[in-house]
This record gives sequence, structure tokens and C-alpha cells, in this order.
Amino acid sequence: MSRTTIHDIARELKTSAATVSRALNDHPSISTATKESIRKAAQRLNYRQNRTASSLRSGKTFVVGVIVPSVQISFFGSVIHGIEQVIKNQGYNVLLFQTNEQYEDEVQGVQTLLQSNVDGIIASISKETIKYDHFLEVKHRNIPLVLFDRSIDELEVPAVVIDDYKGAFMATEHLIQQGYKRIAHISGPQHIRIFHERLRGYVDALKAYGHQVDGDLITYGKLSIDSGRACTQHLLRLAHPPDAIFAVEDFSALGALQVIKESPWSQPGQIGLVGFANEAFSAYITPSLTTIDQQTALMGQEAATIFMNLRQEESNPTGPPQKIVLEPTLVVRQSSLKRQETID
Amino acid sequence: MSRTTIHDIARELKTSAATVSRALNDHPSISTATKESIRKAAQRLNYRQNRTASSLRSGKTFVVGVIVPSVQISFFGSVIHGIEQVIKNQGYNVLLFQTNEQYEDEVQGVQTLLQSNVDGIIASISKETIKYDHFLEVKHRNIPLVLFDRSIDELEVPAVVIDDYKGAFMATEHLIQQGYKRIAHISGPQHIRIFHERLRGYVDALKAYGHQVDGDLITYGKLSIDSGRACTQHLLRLAHPPDAIFAVEDFSALGALQVIKESPWSQPGQIGLVGFANEAFSAYITPSLTTIDQQTALMGQEAATIFMNLRQEESNPTGPPQKIVLEPTLVVRQSSLKRQETID
Repeated sequence: MSRTTIHDIARELKTSAATVSRALNDHPSISTATKESIRKAAQRLNYRQNRTASSLRSGKTFVVGVIVPSVQISFFGSVIHGIEQVIKNQGYNVLLFQTNEQYEDEVQGVQTLLQSNVDGIIASISKETIKYDHFLEVKHRNIPLVLFDRSIDELEVPAVVIDDYKGAFMATEHLIQQGYKRIAHISGPQHIRIFHERLRGYVDALKAYGHQVDGDLITYGKLSIDSGRACTQHLLRLAHPPDAIFAVEDFSALGALQVIKESPWSQPGQIGLVGFANEAFSAYITPSLTTIDQQTALMGQEAATIFMNLRQEESNPTGPPQKIVLEPTLVVRQSSLKRQETID
Repeated sequence: MSRTTIHDIARELKTSAATVSRALNDHPSISTATKESIRKAAQRLNYRQNRTASSLRSGKTFVVGVIVPSVQISFFGSVIHGIEQVIKNQGYNVLLFQTNEQYEDEVQGVQTLLQSNVDGIIASISKETIKYDHFLEVKHRNIPLVLFDRSIDELEVPAVVIDDYKGAFMATEHLIQQGYKRIAHISGPQHIRIFHERLRGYVDALKAYGHQVDGDLITYGKLSIDSGRACTQHLLRLAHPPDAIFAVEDFSALGALQVIKESPWSQPGQIGLVGFANEAFSAYITPSLTTIDQQTALMGQEAATIFMNLRQEESNPTGPPQKIVLEPTLVVRQSSLKRQETID
């Protein structure tokens, strides 16, 4: 069901859309009586005048909905800024919905945005989501849908991601090059592609440098400080504990850092640590956190640009959905640097 | 202009609202022909069926819009969680709009949420906003409006704030009790009541303890890390520099901390520092930041509860708007502790 447009009002009153448009904009060429009858019809049909002339013609709302797991994760906040940079220039506004990583909330989010008549949805999937009917509904309604970061290939919609495999490979390689010998990995939910890719990158980096892959050194966490703490406590209690940890994202790394600082191996450089995401806090903690930057602003800009192209129907709907893969970069700070005297 | 309800469709078709409701819900007691005509009328009138029976009766969208300066400031993120805790239990969803501290964006935000037919708006004002017509429009449309933290008394709408004066008094008193003698203040925009109140609290605490109020030690910043840096560089270059700084919020304090760490007075306890807001990062930086906690979750919960009461029309619209003032608490961490040997 589409939004009431000036064409609906014109049809109702057997007049032209141009007359309706002029009347609603209080044009002097339209008589007071006609203006009055058009305004009444507009009210009856629940017509809502949009703010731009373009909107008057198209029935667009000039709103894009953005669904993220949490606005408090600065990665998502930063992508949102990238989206806004592109979208606001085009007269669009952004409404945000956070899922708190819950599937049910994500379904509610999609429904709420559809009910709000958004012109499109840009989303990153909740870690609890394993069914995608709510996103299929968006697709079937022909409402532009673009995914970023946590995308789902089977949905066959455009997506902007970074090369998570490569980022994880770089993180692990950096720890190897620092001289660490037993590098553990705190991973995340494996049904989300990016966390699986990061695990693959970690494993392949170890193999590429002739390190043994030890299943005891791979733990599966829940992407939080508390989970990072628990995983690290487990790792440090092993008979052969690790001398370095690559955490799948920065909140897990922050939890790991807290446990390391409380442990007998608390000297900087004793246990190396690398995170992933370059969260805002990672530069300010002590030791500052080595991590992988994901070009968040660019990710948002690219997602928004794909949306704008879909909206303007410049893309080719018969081809495969566009997928943009951004390059990760390693940001070396203090947490991964090995003390020189301990390199053997 | 109100949303189309089943009553509008019933009036249009000269039938009962109950018949319309049953037809739209595919009730077997309604004939196929009647269902068809009601569905067509619903489409013509741009009627959107809500997901709940209650919504069918009331025309509510069960969406509340929340406007904040930035979702990346964890203070706002945390208040949003408090709002969601109350609102989701009542079947409501939250759509977020961030203004990036811009007046124009805030106006767009109000318009976008009204266009989305939200049942109410909960907002905290942008630092650039000095005109309030957009909020007056919400009020005049009888759409529930609740402000939190950065509220505007002249709007005469319900608000949840903390006692900013008291929080600032406590922060300054704490520095005095640590033994600091020249306590500077990095303030914020004075047209926003909370920042003015914090300045008042700082001044009155100094007076209460017999300290001189020195205008040279009061600077006006822009609520950011960069602004905090610039203000602190200015303060440390004074002929008589301060030995402690109370910053109006934690991002300014973080900028101050960076400059202090780079300065000749970089030893912990040489220059005391207190922030305001208990941002997420404040516990993780080194030295960890002493700050004022604002009971963010409770602030969100109270704002949401006021909204729910307004929505259910349990409140008395003829009385003065409800104002809830929460108590701040001092969170003492490392940044404010004076080295014992330097207390004279």
C-alpha cells in the first residue's frame, strides 16, 4: 500500500496533480474555494505534505531507516555518521533502530520502519538472528535494502563489508612478527560470517608462518567485556597458557586486557593483545589497544551511495547484488608490542 | 491531522467500526464482497493496519521517537536503554534521531518523527538550538513531549533532569577536599541550562569553602575532546596556572587529561581532574577519570514513564508539567587524587 500522493487527491477531485500541488503550496493562481476543497480532500485522504517539491511529486518520504545491533558500539555510530554524510546532502533523514542484538527486536525494527514508510533500509544483522524472513519482506516489497558489516549472502542484497579474513590474518601476523609463540583467539558466534572469516584468517596466518594451530587456544565468546574476561580467565588457566591473544572485537579485547592486568603476567609486553574494530576507547585505555580499523566512515558512505543508486533506479536490478569489500588496516598501539628482552 | 482509523473507513462506507475491524481481520462472519469494499476503502484512505488489536482501536502507532544530540555519547546511549526498558514492555518501539548538535538537524528530526506518526517524542536539546518552534509544534499537536537532561523550562513540558548544580558543587568540593588550591572550570554553552547550573555549582562550592573565584580560571568550551585540549592549553599557559580542573563533561575532561599528560605537570596528582557524565571510557583511561554519575538508566526510565502516563492520559493536563530531578553521585577514581606529599 503506497503513501497518498497528490495524484490520488487529483483523481479524487477530478483535477490535475499540478493544480493540487499549487493549491497545497498556496499558489496565487488557484482560487480560495479550490484551495479549500483540495486541502479538505488532502486531510480526508490523510495526505501528508512533504517538505520538498521532489517529495510532492514522488510520494517519497525522504527517510532511510538504519538498523544496528547497538548505537553504543562506536563502530556502528561511526558507520551511521558515514551514512548521514551522504544521505543528508540528498535531502534525506535517518531514523535509527537498535536491536540490542536480539532477533525479536530486529523483526520489530523492520516492521516499525516499514510502518513509518521509510524509502529504504540499511542494516547490520543482530548476533542472535538466524532467520531472515523480515528482511525478505523488505526485499519483496521492493524497498531498497543494503547490508553492511554483518551481511547475509543468502539474502542476495547489496552489501558493504571489509575483508575480515585479511584483517584477522594481519592481526595474527603482527603478533607472530612481534615474536609471540602461543597466540590464542577469542572468537564470536560462528553463524555470523564475519566472525567465522576472522577465525579463518587467524588459522591461516598461523599456518602460513609454520605455527601449530592448537584448538585449546580458540575460545568462543559473546562480543562483550564480560565475555572477553571469561574467555581470558579460561585461557590463562590452561596448562600451557597463551603468550598473546587476538580478540575478535575490541570489547572482548578490553575484557581480556582487564584480566591480563590483574594477572601475574601483567607486565606490558608479556601477553600481547590485538583487538578488531578500532572502537573509540581503544586509543585511550592503558596500554592502548592495537586493533584493526574497518574504515567505518567509508563503509557508511558506500552503503548510503548504494542506497541512493537503488533509489534512483540507476542500478541494474537483474544483475547480481553489488558487494563492496573494503580493505582493513592494522593500527599498532602499545598492547601488542613485545618487550625486547623477552624475545628469544 | 490525525492518522486514518477504522472509524474513518466506517464513516466513509456508512457501516460500523466493528464491521470494518472484522473485515480487515478476515473474520468469517463478513461476506467476501463487504471485505473487498472495506479493503478498497482502507487502501483509498491510506489506512495502515497496525499489528495489535489495541492499535486497531486507537490508531496509535506504538512508536516513540527519541531525539538526542549524538548516539555516540554513551550518556545518551545509556538513557536510551533506560527508555527502552520501560517502553518495550508496553509494546512500544523506539525510533532514534541524532541531531549532531545542529539546530537544523533537530528541526528535521521533529518533522521526520511527526511524519512517521510517532505517538510521542522524548528529546534532549542540541547545543546549537536557541529557537524552539519545532518543539512547540509537537506540543500544539497534542503529541506527548518529554525532555531529559538538556531541557528548556520555557517550553513548559515535562522533563527529567539531574541536579546539575549539586553535581558540580560535589565535584568542586571533592577537589577542594583533596587539597587543590587553584581549581579551574572548563564550562559549556551558557544558553543551555545544565551547563550554566554546573558553572553556578562550581562558583558556589569555591565560595562555600572560602576560595577565591578567579575569572581567569573559567573557560568556555564546546563539549569535545579538541575543545577540552584547547581550553586546558590556555589554562596551563596562564601566569598563575590552576592545580586542578573541573570539566563540564567527560569529553572535555578527556582532552584536558591528554594535555596534562603531555605537560611538565604530568605526574599523577599534580593536576587534579574531575569530569561530568561518567561516560563509558572514563573508567578505562589512565588515570581513570573521577566524574559525576547522572543515573542515566533511571533518567530514561523516568522519562519513559512520564510518556506512558501522558499517553494514557492519566496525568492532569491542567497542572504544571511534571519535573523530576535526580540526584547526582560522585564517582571517585584516580584523576582527582592528590599525591600526599604535595598537600601543604
